[in-house]
Amino acid sequence: MLEKQRLSTPREGFLNITHAVQDAVSRSGVLEGQAIVFVPHTTAGVTINENADPDVPRDLLLGLERAFPDRPEFRHAEGNSSAHLRASAMGSSVTVFIQGGALLLGTWQGVFFAEFDGPRSREFLVKIVQD
Amino acid sequence: MLEKQRLSTPREGFLNITHAVQDAVSRSGVLEGQAIVFVPHTTAGVTINENADPDVPRDLLLGLERAFPDRPEFRHAEGNSSAHLRASAMGSSVTVFIQGGALLLGTWQGVFFAEFDGPRSREFLVKIVQD
Amino acid sequence: MLEKQRLSTPREGFLNITHAVQDAVSRSGVLEGQAIVFVPHTTAGVTINENADPDVPRDLLLGLERAFPDRPEFRHAEGNSSAHLRASAMGSSVTVFIQGGALLLGTWQGVFFAEFDGPRSREFLVKIVQD
Repeated sequence: MLEKQRLSTPREGFLNITHAVQDAVSRSGVLEGQAIVFVPHTTAGVTINENADPDVPRDLLLGLERAFPDRPEFRHAEGNSSAHLRASAMGSSVTVFIQGGALLLGTWQGVFFAEFDGPRSREFLVKIVQD
Repeated sequence: MLEKQRLSTPREGFLNITHAVQDAVSRSGVLEGQAIVFVPHTTAGVTINENADPDVPRDLLLGLERAFPDRPEFRHAEGNSSAHLRASAMGSSVTVFIQGGALLLGTWQGVFFAEFDGPRSREFLVKIVQD
Repeated sequence: MLEKQRLSTPREGFLNITHAVQDAVSRSGVLEGQAIVFVPHTTAGVTINENADPDVPRDLLLGLERAFPDRPEFRHAEGNSSAHLRASAMGSSVTVFIQGGALLLGTWQGVFFAEFDGPRSREFLVKIVQD
């Protein structure tokens, strides 16, 4: 099963999409398998990190800005090369196992859509694979 | 087949789990497929890198500390935001193909559990998928 | 289906391998599934990013050099620890969904082999999995 989901993003931020992915798993009826989330954009990515304290995604954003700042040497005319860089650092997909119809995430883990060049209307794809 | 394996970690470090993953492949009896390793933590990750010279994982750790240092602006009360950042930079899963019952890794490659906020009792999941 | 493809790389750079991956999908005859690209090296990786403006991969390379520079404290005798670091930051594999026999990439996305320690004769593996 392959689903496309849409979301509206702020200028930048880690958006928690864990429930949306779990809903796709539930709709699929798959009990044992994998959920693969893919982001079809080049200035947004996807990662798994802490679901509990909202200061964590905020700090992640700050840390990525400092590690991959905008630079005067960048040539890409749109001026968003740092967003492209942050997107590749996070990655374009994550895989989560499914057990008993539920995402097999760690206690503190959630799935986050990482926006680095919004606000935009974005989408992500979820594929549910049965074992 | 889905297996959980435990390991005890130092304060930080790249721990070679290649043999543990290969053992899971062997136990599964799968000859052609994929091994997917997933880390269910938010301050540890998993990556594939050089298996030969122990200075490589040591340098990786140092390079990540410099790229993603602790920052006074971080707000997360636990004080380990840089560990969260390094975990997302490495990622939560890796996929390795299986051929003839063996992990199809490059000559110099190994699979490493990346601890950024130990020492802890940790775990990783290995799913063996048959083609 | 599992295929090995070879490429010759420059000293460093993001090489567009999208067509090569699509060709593997076409040869496989798979209409719905996943293409998984795996790089069996430790100073090269693979990522998905912008396919349109060649200044984007150029800027990615520059941004990674600045985030993960060579450091005097690195001990690895080959002197290429920064290349190992950049490889792990990009990752060793990407997954792309297949729909109707075509890679389901976003409008601007392409698949790039990321060379950080060339020039070399390199390879990448493509596995096509049917749903």
